[in-house]
Amino acid sequence: MQPTVDKIAAAAGPVRDRIRPAIIETPCLPARTLDGVFYKTENLQNTGSFKLRGAMSKLTSLSVEQPLITASSGNHGIACSHAASQTGHDLTVVLPENVAKAKLTKIESYGVKVVLHPGDSGKAEVEARARADSDGFTYVSPYNDPDVVAGQATIGLEIAEQVPDAASIYVSMGGGGLISGIGAAIKSHNPDIRVVGVSATNSAALAASITAGQITDVEHLDTLADGCAGGVDEGAITLPLASQLVDTLIHCTEEEIAETLRLIAWEDKMLVEGAAALALAGLFKDEDRKRGEKSVVVLCGSNFDTTVIAPIVDPGA
Amino acid sequence: MQPTVDKIAAAAGPVRDRIRPAIIETPCLPARTLDGVFYKTENLQNTGSFKLRGAMSKLTSLSVEQPLITASSGNHGIACSHAASQTGHDLTVVLPENVAKAKLTKIESYGVKVVLHPGDSGKAEVEARARADSDGFTYVSPYNDPDVVAGQATIGLEIAEQVPDAASIYVSMGGGGLISGIGAAIKSHNPDIRVVGVSATNSAALAASITAGQITDVEHLDTLADGCAGGVDEGAITLPLASQLVDTLIHCTEEEIAETLRLIAWEDKMLVEGAAALALAGLFKDEDRKRGEKSVVVLCGSNFDTTVIAPIVDPGA
Repeated sequence: MQPTVDKIAAAAGPVRDRIRPAIIETPCLPARTLDGVFYKTENLQNTGSFKLRGAMSKLTSLSVEQPLITASSGNHGIACSHAASQTGHDLTVVLPENVAKAKLTKIESYGVKVVLHPGDSGKAEVEARARADSDGFTYVSPYNDPDVVAGQATIGLEIAEQVPDAASIYVSMGGGGLISGIGAAIKSHNPDIRVVGVSATNSAALAASITAGQITDVEHLDTLADGCAGGVDEGAITLPLASQLVDTLIHCTEEEIAETLRLIAWEDKMLVEGAAALALAGLFKDEDRKRGEKSVVVLCGSNFDTTVIAPIVDPGA
Repeated sequence: MQPTVDKIAAAAGPVRDRIRPAIIETPCLPARTLDGVFYKTENLQNTGSFKLRGAMSKLTSLSVEQPLITASSGNHGIACSHAASQTGHDLTVVLPENVAKAKLTKIESYGVKVVLHPGDSGKAEVEARARADSDGFTYVSPYNDPDVVAGQATIGLEIAEQVPDAASIYVSMGGGGLISGIGAAIKSHNPDIRVVGVSATNSAALAASITAGQITDVEHLDTLADGCAGGVDEGAITLPLASQLVDTLIHCTEEEIAETLRLIAWEDKMLVEGAAALALAGLFKDEDRKRGEKSVVVLCGSNFDTTVIAPIVDPGA
């Protein structure tokens, strides 16, 4: 069943009440040196990314007796693991056997079950879905699930209260759960707001799919915005949602992401992940933004590999 | 007139209402890797430090017709300048003629009057006080003023709501306005909370004064916690307040401050100033803290010289 924009928007309020105890209502902070720009600071969210909202929304919609499975070593995996530690669900996380030790340790610290599987993260996901089908687990998708999207929509409700007169909002796009949720919620309060979807040029599957009107895969190159990397599921609910909600598509290069990440570090004093910097990089490239109009940039997370990010943050870089 | 702890506590509520439009109610964020530790994130406050609260409290207590003068190129100067741009007060900021260009530009960006004065910042302060006496300005002190202290006290009110069961709170000490305000407000809600005053070993005048029972000057060496550096005014109202409110005094070395600053950067993903890292460094040295008890660490600001802080943040440092 395809959830509509209206259904996501209607679900967001009840979900917000349900997940409130586990979530930080992150502030919308004015950017220090950019007139009219506000950061929705999900980089300060528990677990270090917005993904906790979707995970908490999904888990609180299910009986605690229902065993769950997912397959992410990144923000979604951390979020689901933390959520399960809050709700008491039995969660299994399937990870590639070559997963970085730090990520494995982090996931295990929440007391969830970890299965190491041969091959890459794609293989781990296939395995998790197979076990869901055969062993009675519920698979928790990072974006292709109405409850997850409704969880991310709670960010839109908060922004509508925090910056009610925002003219534009910049959201980085991976699978599209974030922009679909935020777009649905915020347009229900502020129909004229311009929703700008920002993609890393190196991995822009959702943008290509929106443009083509169907799921379209693209070449995936390494990107600093690794939280946004990867393809979009065949039949993903986020494609029709994002197609309806996104007003402008912008693509940014790795250099633009890196420069913006450095700016956020030294001007705004926050270390964010590439996918967060990507959203602000998109604002800088947006020719339709009127100088001084109020804009919200969603800083989606702050989980990163320090060895990758430290050299980029270096002011001499 | 010596303001009492009770008077500061009583003033904090009305001041909070008065300054609310200009202030961010900063979140108390759980430290990512420290059990039971919460950061009161004044590093995310407008102008980059808590000083805006005291400045707004003072300016909103005075007629807008009253011309004002102060003498700081640091957090207090930025805060007063921003506050004056909000209230419409005529503010003059006296700065040493060798003030760093970046600081001068920042202060001037608020549209205040700047007077450059020969000599160091001590001389600039003397000049500002002299003009206050001779030319009818009201001098705005960074800490030696009941309205300023009541402004900082609003932080204590917020913490009492955000972490009502905190057992201890760690506050870095310069002139003592921050710890006096927070201590007065929070003890009125939670009398058993332990208030820990943290000093940089290199510039610990207030700690020495509390210990001696009178204003005592000390040798002042350079410190990363430059926001806390300097002596305490003869007759300062903060000495009796802090003497009554501070339960434990802790001193930290430059290396301890640097290490802690690096930890906050890479674990908590925030770049803070030395005076903010100092408060957490104090927690690490506190032998009376019970493991897992709820503690609030006040991250007082994030204004710093990037050329000084960037090499310290370097994970290889």
